[in-house]
Amino acid sequence: MGAAAQTDEVENEPWGEVTPDAARRLLVAAVEAFAERGYHATTTRDIAGRAGMSPAALYIHYKTKEELLHRISRIGHEKALEILQTASAHEGTAAERLSDAVRSFVRWHASQHTTARVVQYELDALGPEARAEIVALRRRTDEVVRGIINDGVQAGEFDVPDVRGTTVAVLSLCIDVARWFNVAGRQTPDEVGALYADLVLRMVGAKR
Amino acid sequence: MGAAAQTDEVENEPWGEVTPDAARRLLVAAVEAFAERGYHATTTRDIAGRAGMSPAALYIHYKTKEELLHRISRIGHEKALEILQTASAHEGTAAERLSDAVRSFVRWHASQHTTARVVQYELDALGPEARAEIVALRRRTDEVVRGIINDGVQAGEFDVPDVRGTTVAVLSLCIDVARWFNVAGRQTPDEVGALYADLVLRMVGAKR
Repeated sequence: MGAAAQTDEVENEPWGEVTPDAARRLLVAAVEAFAERGYHATTTRDIAGRAGMSPAALYIHYKTKEELLHRISRIGHEKALEILQTASAHEGTAAERLSDAVRSFVRWHASQHTTARVVQYELDALGPEARAEIVALRRRTDEVVRGIINDGVQAGEFDVPDVRGTTVAVLSLCIDVARWFNVAGRQTPDEVGALYADLVLRMVGAKR
Repeated sequence: MGAAAQTDEVENEPWGEVTPDAARRLLVAAVEAFAERGYHATTTRDIAGRAGMSPAALYIHYKTKEELLHRISRIGHEKALEILQTASAHEGTAAERLSDAVRSFVRWHASQHTTARVVQYELDALGPEARAEIVALRRRTDEVVRGIINDGVQAGEFDVPDVRGTTVAVLSLCIDVARWFNVAGRQTPDEVGALYADLVLRMVGAKR
């Protein structure tokens, strides 16, 4: 029940912090358009049209198409970081914290796969300044997972010869769920999260 | 030496089977253009220009932009399948075959990351018939890896509660190398392949 409620909340209110309502509708429309046609093939006119607004109304909220992508990317990355930080801050062994982090992170990438794809695949379209900001957020994301793995190694819970490479692999495994996850498929986001938590504990050689 | 030679071969002659030379140059130009701007934002004129040819010369070899994407996707998927089939057919334990399969598959996704990204991210742009063909190739790819894992389980070498889900995860881990791999980064394709072979053996609970 707790896990299901959490999934629903993340799933239904991903852009809750974006106000006013028109700015949020434009962001949702941009995510859909970028996911369907790619960033470069999408115009601000397309986005405004999807949101049922005029191009002029769009410019009140976003000066450029890049500003929309930057906003989407920042919110997506901040949410991913927050999910991992929350799990990392919990009481418990490194194995429990890592398991919790992987479950929530996978659940987010499965339920928010459209947003996650845009956020992951259109990084090159950002200008240098926006890109630097997102790269910094990704570095912090990486550090949270590396921190849990290091805690496990130091406590003698995990056996990891290459902590840095294993951290990259763990995050990569979870992120790629956004590419293949299919809402009509046989597994729910919760089920994929549970399977992946087990696989990641194996990757770090967690003592059973 | 053997591994390095194999990497070079795959890296330098990825489109060797495409003839004549003009058709191959157009394919290489299309991969670059799709990777940079996305399929929908790329025109056949862009592709011809990159290849130093006229749009009319392009139409001699490819009737549509979709035909180019289809050709790229088919060659990419066939190469990936061939790599896995070769490793699977080797003599040895399931652990040795799985390790070999992961190493070669990762090496290909790292060294051919531009092609792999196009092949993986532009699947939705294919028409129904082309898409069905590619989906069938992916199913066979999946079957090869599932076959090795099943062999290992039956031989008592592996401990895998969910063979189907674990197969998806193993392939996903390897494929996502194409997203994050950076030729200027700290690891070579061979090094990532070696790390990943170890991580995958852990995922399937291979006896040490």
